[in-house]
Amino acid sequence: MFKVGLIGLGVMGKPMAANLLRAGFPLTVFHPVRERCESLEIMGAAVAETPEQLARTNDAVITILPETVTVEQVLFGEKGVAAGLKPTCAVIDMSTISPTATVEFARRLEAVGCQMLDAPVTGGRKGAVEGTLGIMVGGRHEVFAKYLPILQATGKTITYTGPIGNGQKTKLVNQLVGATNLLAAVEGLRLMRAAGLDPETTLNAVSSGAASSWMLVNLGPLILQGDFDPGFSIRLQFKDLTLLRDWIAELGGEYPASSLVYSVFQEAMKKGLEKQGNQGLINVWPSP
Amino acid sequence: MFKVGLIGLGVMGKPMAANLLRAGFPLTVFHPVRERCESLEIMGAAVAETPEQLARTNDAVITILPETVTVEQVLFGEKGVAAGLKPTCAVIDMSTISPTATVEFARRLEAVGCQMLDAPVTGGRKGAVEGTLGIMVGGRHEVFAKYLPILQATGKTITYTGPIGNGQKTKLVNQLVGATNLLAAVEGLRLMRAAGLDPETTLNAVSSGAASSWMLVNLGPLILQGDFDPGFSIRLQFKDLTLLRDWIAELGGEYPASSLVYSVFQEAMKKGLEKQGNQGLINVWPSP
Repeated sequence: MFKVGLIGLGVMGKPMAANLLRAGFPLTVFHPVRERCESLEIMGAAVAETPEQLARTNDAVITILPETVTVEQVLFGEKGVAAGLKPTCAVIDMSTISPTATVEFARRLEAVGCQMLDAPVTGGRKGAVEGTLGIMVGGRHEVFAKYLPILQATGKTITYTGPIGNGQKTKLVNQLVGATNLLAAVEGLRLMRAAGLDPETTLNAVSSGAASSWMLVNLGPLILQGDFDPGFSIRLQFKDLTLLRDWIAELGGEYPASSLVYSVFQEAMKKGLEKQGNQGLINVWPSP
Repeated sequence: MFKVGLIGLGVMGKPMAANLLRAGFPLTVFHPVRERCESLEIMGAAVAETPEQLARTNDAVITILPETVTVEQVLFGEKGVAAGLKPTCAVIDMSTISPTATVEFARRLEAVGCQMLDAPVTGGRKGAVEGTLGIMVGGRHEVFAKYLPILQATGKTITYTGPIGNGQKTKLVNQLVGATNLLAAVEGLRLMRAAGLDPETTLNAVSSGAASSWMLVNLGPLILQGDFDPGFSIRLQFKDLTLLRDWIAELGGEYPASSLVYSVFQEAMKKGLEKQGNQGLINVWPSP
């Protein structure tokens, strides 16, 4: 059984680490704030002092971190993962970060003899806790096949998407479609309110046919209840849409829905809605 | 059992008329092109020479017509429905037309002692043939309750939405959300192609989580197969988005997704895509 290291015990990383322990993987964790490690230590995880130390003793290192720069720092900074990696060890980055930077990170790891998979996830905190995440994996297929049991301990729908970076690209396509569907749901709810239609009747009617979406069905009722607690926060959605914008700028081409959702989420950030769940997008506009 | 008249044997009206006959309603039909009536005549329908004549002998008159002006002409023009209506007869307009004009038409019918329901449908030709349409009904509740058996012969999910015009308003909210979800699906497919991702793998991954929508799941595979046959045509989708634009102009307020999908469908019309199914929206942009 692989010895697994996991770096980043945030909202996602912590329950994912617990699921790896439950699946029987010997686990070492690292987080800059030592107290975040305690509950996992009680469950049986070892705690490393640095990413370098964590890499030295494990067969695979998972990173699940908030930003491209955080991943770069943890991998290649002082006392970083790269300094401690054995050539047989792989890095599995489950963060959502720049696909272009991902390809570059993989190249730098390959220079020291190590393989990398990019394996960003969908399904939010709920999926992480229940082990039902969607995972979109890029990298060499034999590396994917080798480490698949680790991914299976944290997720349910696991898709091999092709070469390194393709996991992130698939995730950004997913975020584009999801954020635009969310804007559609929000605008539909605004319009039904402005028109004086009964919100629940209208939501039910619209959800039952060709206009239905996960966002409308799952977040529409929360909006009607005035529940803006974060499942997936506006701040994180905006982070992903910024990655999307930067990637599209590299690719070229006109993607008007992407531009629109970026600007609407930017407005939500300006209005101080960053800690609300993404359904809080409706609060960009005044109520009718 | 009500004696029913139906005006407008287009893509929707013809199978709806057949379902009314199958449900046992004595049916009279009218269509300006006499040959469109023949197959229904064989099934047992009577054929009227004018809307006025059709109205004279029936308890309820269904109109299912392409445009606001067509409905106005059929109701109030020469030899129109209003000229033949008995005071006990109701008009059930199942077209998708202006909610504002609908309220005005109902007022004019009430002046001659007749009731009106607006009852636009969703579900396209398939729903009309199978009798599984979604129907969003506005008007007085006792009128809705009285004529419900007629609606049940043509549709499945029947929603009472409130006063006259609310059926059309609910339908336009539905069209806003659906068209925006379609744009999201189209843009996601364009991006996955431009990025060189495997389209089927990516579509499956994106369809399995929070970015899923009816449009993505049902029209995404058609786009990948290059199948642009009309289930619901770009021309009709643009017609509905024009009604939406006009209604929003009356209401006031900023609805950026609505503005965007209107302009993208306008571009599709300019490019001569009007006869394609709405999934043909992807042909607005050159292939990557």
